[in-house]
Amino acid sequence: MKYLGTFLMVLCVSFIGLAQKTIEVNSPDSRLRLNVTLQQNGEVTYSVLLKNNAIIKPSSLGFRLSKPALLLNHFKIVSVDTSTHYDTWTPVWGEVKTITNHYKEVKLNLKSVNAGNVLVQIVFRLFNDGVGFSYEFPEQANFKHFVVDEELTQFNLAGNNKTFWIPGDYDTNEYLYNTTKFSDIHALAAAHKEKDIALQSLIADNAIQTPLMMKTPEGIYVNIHEAALVNYPVMHLLADRKNFKLTTHLTPDAVGNKAYLQTPAKTPWRTIIISDKATDILASKTILNLNEPSKIENTSWIKPQKFIGMWWEMHVGKATWEKSSGKHGANTANVKKYIDFASENGFDGVLVEGWNEGWEDWFGNWKEEVFDFVTPYADYNLDELLAYAKQKGVKLIMHHETSGSATNYERRIDKAFQLMNEKGINTVKTGYVGKIIPRGEHHDSQWMVNHYNRVADKAIDYKIMLEAHESVRPTGLHRTYPNWLANEAARGNEFNNAPTLGLVPEHETILPFTRLMGGPMDYTPGFFRMHLNQFVPERKTRVRTTIAKQLALYVTMYSPLQMAGDLPENFNVHPDLLQFIKDVPVDWDDTKILEAEPGDYITIARKQKGKDNWFVGAVSDENTHKATINFNFLDKGTKYQAIIYRDAPNADWNTNPEAYIIEKVMVDSNSILSINLAKGGGCAISIFK
Amino acid sequence: MKYLGTFLMVLCVSFIGLAQKTIEVNSPDSRLRLNVTLQQNGEVTYSVLLKNNAIIKPSSLGFRLSKPALLLNHFKIVSVDTSTHYDTWTPVWGEVKTITNHYKEVKLNLKSVNAGNVLVQIVFRLFNDGVGFSYEFPEQANFKHFVVDEELTQFNLAGNNKTFWIPGDYDTNEYLYNTTKFSDIHALAAAHKEKDIALQSLIADNAIQTPLMMKTPEGIYVNIHEAALVNYPVMHLLADRKNFKLTTHLTPDAVGNKAYLQTPAKTPWRTIIISDKATDILASKTILNLNEPSKIENTSWIKPQKFIGMWWEMHVGKATWEKSSGKHGANTANVKKYIDFASENGFDGVLVEGWNEGWEDWFGNWKEEVFDFVTPYADYNLDELLAYAKQKGVKLIMHHETSGSATNYERRIDKAFQLMNEKGINTVKTGYVGKIIPRGEHHDSQWMVNHYNRVADKAIDYKIMLEAHESVRPTGLHRTYPNWLANEAARGNEFNNAPTLGLVPEHETILPFTRLMGGPMDYTPGFFRMHLNQFVPERKTRVRTTIAKQLALYVTMYSPLQMAGDLPENFNVHPDLLQFIKDVPVDWDDTKILEAEPGDYITIARKQKGKDNWFVGAVSDENTHKATINFNFLDKGTKYQAIIYRDAPNADWNTNPEAYIIEKVMVDSNSILSINLAKGGGCAISIFK
Repeated sequence: MKYLGTFLMVLCVSFIGLAQKTIEVNSPDSRLRLNVTLQQNGEVTYSVLLKNNAIIKPSSLGFRLSKPALLLNHFKIVSVDTSTHYDTWTPVWGEVKTITNHYKEVKLNLKSVNAGNVLVQIVFRLFNDGVGFSYEFPEQANFKHFVVDEELTQFNLAGNNKTFWIPGDYDTNEYLYNTTKFSDIHALAAAHKEKDIALQSLIADNAIQTPLMMKTPEGIYVNIHEAALVNYPVMHLLADRKNFKLTTHLTPDAVGNKAYLQTPAKTPWRTIIISDKATDILASKTILNLNEPSKIENTSWIKPQKFIGMWWEMHVGKATWEKSSGKHGANTANVKKYIDFASENGFDGVLVEGWNEGWEDWFGNWKEEVFDFVTPYADYNLDELLAYAKQKGVKLIMHHETSGSATNYERRIDKAFQLMNEKGINTVKTGYVGKIIPRGEHHDSQWMVNHYNRVADKAIDYKIMLEAHESVRPTGLHRTYPNWLANEAARGNEFNNAPTLGLVPEHETILPFTRLMGGPMDYTPGFFRMHLNQFVPERKTRVRTTIAKQLALYVTMYSPLQMAGDLPENFNVHPDLLQFIKDVPVDWDDTKILEAEPGDYITIARKQKGKDNWFVGAVSDENTHKATINFNFLDKGTKYQAIIYRDAPNADWNTNPEAYIIEKVMVDSNSILSINLAKGGGCAISIFK
Repeated sequence: MKYLGTFLMVLCVSFIGLAQKTIEVNSPDSRLRLNVTLQQNGEVTYSVLLKNNAIIKPSSLGFRLSKPALLLNHFKIVSVDTSTHYDTWTPVWGEVKTITNHYKEVKLNLKSVNAGNVLVQIVFRLFNDGVGFSYEFPEQANFKHFVVDEELTQFNLAGNNKTFWIPGDYDTNEYLYNTTKFSDIHALAAAHKEKDIALQSLIADNAIQTPLMMKTPEGIYVNIHEAALVNYPVMHLLADRKNFKLTTHLTPDAVGNKAYLQTPAKTPWRTIIISDKATDILASKTILNLNEPSKIENTSWIKPQKFIGMWWEMHVGKATWEKSSGKHGANTANVKKYIDFASENGFDGVLVEGWNEGWEDWFGNWKEEVFDFVTPYADYNLDELLAYAKQKGVKLIMHHETSGSATNYERRIDKAFQLMNEKGINTVKTGYVGKIIPRGEHHDSQWMVNHYNRVADKAIDYKIMLEAHESVRPTGLHRTYPNWLANEAARGNEFNNAPTLGLVPEHETILPFTRLMGGPMDYTPGFFRMHLNQFVPERKTRVRTTIAKQLALYVTMYSPLQMAGDLPENFNVHPDLLQFIKDVPVDWDDTKILEAEPGDYITIARKQKGKDNWFVGAVSDENTHKATINFNFLDKGTKYQAIIYRDAPNADWNTNPEAYIIEKVMVDSNSILSINLAKGGGCAISIFK
């Protein structure tokens, strides 16, 4: 990380009226403007404008504390600090080689009035593509420990935005996205349609989750989320559907409190990414920039990975996690087949679910001691498989399903990680299916946020790479924890097998604008058998994409940890398509968002880490889309061979999903290709120098 | 442990009416009778009689479950198993050398009617001095995991008993005892008088705690408690003050559930100790007998101990736990003085509180990560003190105050115990002051019960002896965990420094009938400066006993872990009295309860483990008492020298507490001594062969 400069900026401080005081800041490129105002009554508000168009109207800030019982939303300004920051930094892995961190900062040093003289700092950072702000509570003599009853942050929208939302829920984010006008948000009705989510903890009909993607009536794209969620609960949002206003609703703990803090304390950053181009939203690094640098000094043990897994057999009813059924998937012979397949096709790892004792009653009983994370089933010979995998040049990936019992996991995690160290297993997939223990806590409450982060810290101690399922949705913490490769934390590809709503073709055109804004997702793309009834027959489930789109997802859904989700025998039906998955890398030197519209289409080109190869992915929603790919990102004057994996002209996610064409063409930086994506379709292109 | 015999007994099964069926069992000595009846409506009731006098009238049994939602209180009898058991066993330490375990057992194999056909077993064990019963849920096809909403056990008393009670409270049992008629129980009023208890979680005006001591209008002594509290919440009792009926009220968890169980499951034993002699209550081993045998095979590392501690300095304001005050007690030089004193006077150990970082804000903030249990304050040189103590032949005793944050302790306990192993510290005092984390759990809820037991298990792994403060009150688990030497879990001697109610002279005549029924207490006797204002002057606090009574407590308050509570300099004022504390052992071959009346007086003689010495303690309440000591427990025809430490004739706990007489007399098995105990007084006698 390089700090190239921090210098004082000249502030435009205007005095409107008698006591009202406004601080105005422009983004480094002057595109965005932030106004922070101390209102006459002592309220502090902020507003954000893009090219003089109000995006966020004056919105108030503050806190309601339960201990001490204080309402912190009227202040006087003690002082204001301003600065400009510019540096670049190199992520351990990522979409680009180097990230620029350029912002103007305004720090308001406030003192609460009529409420305890509490010192509060509100820090704004204005980037070219958005704004982040957080509250800080510095050390002070008479205010040390405090309990947050609610954070009173507002996002006062300028109009009735088109909104991509999922219902507010303390325990799950595995919902389909709803696309409605802001005024038409109805979270409960939407949630009640979702029969495939085992555990719902709904909040209110107007409660929605972040990352929240919106488009203003004027066509401006706005994304609201948070960055660096540490020692604080997840922020949900309550929509005032009449006045187009959002207010924070923090996830409560078992007794209804939101957060227990001790000065010096700070909240996560509240982020608003704004652009008139949807592609800028996807390219934004503001959430990452608002996170702290890596905790890990020597990161040589961290490697992006492609992997397959013993898991989909269980989802489609071919095998089970539990041994007692008589068709236990994770038996030694079966896992060897996966190792063979991984080895033959160049995958780094094989995830094995159902390897350990406890699956007989792992779910639904709020049982505390389900798994011990170290005892394999009798038919799973760990040492034999480790030796076999080693000989084949493949790594096993550990699976720690906690069934939501975080207390049990915390008690056993050292032994579990010690076993991994002993056996040379350096990646773990954790899972949090079911109601949380400590009972009364939620997946999104402060205690659990701390738990996930503790696990990531512990993984650092043991040099273990981590991905978490059913955990809190990410907030850019992978900058700080580069060993934390990915999360699920949204509706993944596995929902193609869900018995009711499942997935819809537009899902993958929304996820990059929502869930992925916070960090990589283990979406598990790569399903090669698409037709009805190929899974559990009685469910009549099926994949809702064309087969070409499954390939495109490896590019459009960024993750340093990419699975090929399907069964080996299904991949073997289409070895020509499998070639793309074998070729596509999981780490990149550059990324170009070529075109994007949330809910409609996304086309992205990425340059392989350390190589001159590029890969393009394009996906459509339930409609056809003509993807336009301008290859001007290629080196000038150089010819490249492009292998295009695209939908056949008669392809259709619903009626003809496995119809594809593979063609090889030569391209250069002057090439422009128009490629027709089928309904629910996609296109993947490998481009080799 | 020896099983001398198990054989079938002949049952008296009578049929009264058409469907009502009663099983009648007599205790081995025929003194007690238990009737178990299947009522016509399917209810199962039990009643207990002493010599044909009803003590417990027919009382119903059952459960209300929340998941599955079932009311399990109507049954049909599948079968009845009966047996008689006799064996003797040798405790690792205790009041007697050998314990006889003799009972008749009736096991009802029941099936619930109108509610799920759940198999429930109710097991009764009838001893000569009482009855224990527990519910068992055997493995069965259609009933596996279940959640207890409430246990529906009744104790239907025969009359308006004199009752020694403390208010029902999920988080503390540090109350003064109230002595009222059963009909006059008013828990809330009593609790609200108690200003010295920092954390109260009261239940209801009619809620009281166990062990519950009562005396019937006919003069029969009845004690209700539980044995072997494992994986279940603490049982409180709700008093129907009109009908003299008690019903169970289990401690809820954070979401209001009581217990999460999985078949095979069993509840703790509900115990009713009954005798027409109060001394039999104190001598009862029924609660111990109902616990499982020792988990520890090689117990050679377990040693009863006498110790002093760096703690009272803090209570009386001479020093502080925290270092930031500038008068940190646990500094190296100061602790050396304690080691010197312990070494000079033959104490085994020195407890050091406030040795570790975190005390600056350890209490009252529901803070999760207060202590790490391994980092000493900079002015506490652990290694230097360990070397010094070793050279002086004294052990340091570790202190792990958790401030109620059990999750934090569980995460750090391995490192904490590893440190103890490395440093050769083999005893730990744990503490649970404050609101529990996981937040919403209580000191008495199932999760915390499991926590305390987990700590005891972990202590076995590390060969560590344990005593817990502010933990759940014991239920005889020290049979199973002989490394778990003692608990606080009641109002201890430290309350002499409490600013309001403090202690009362009768307190120590009630505790053995209540709190101590479940197991040893770390009461911290041995205060030598008794007068007003010797502690924190502004509190006007003082010890509410005579000085001789402080000595007597070492005999009347059984514990294998006895502290001498006062400051070294206070002991040095009365070296002649200190001699008794130096002489009195903490492990015994025999115990004779010579006389006892709850709330009035107790006189006990105990024989030193492995030696022919006896020690007598006698205590009175706020009245004088003439203790009659018949020495017929001594070996016939042998002369013993008795050193009597007694109240001077003008002694009085209130007006003249430090007036005492020490005299030496010769006694033999024909001797009978009458000794006058002052108001709040006592007498201690060492008897050497």
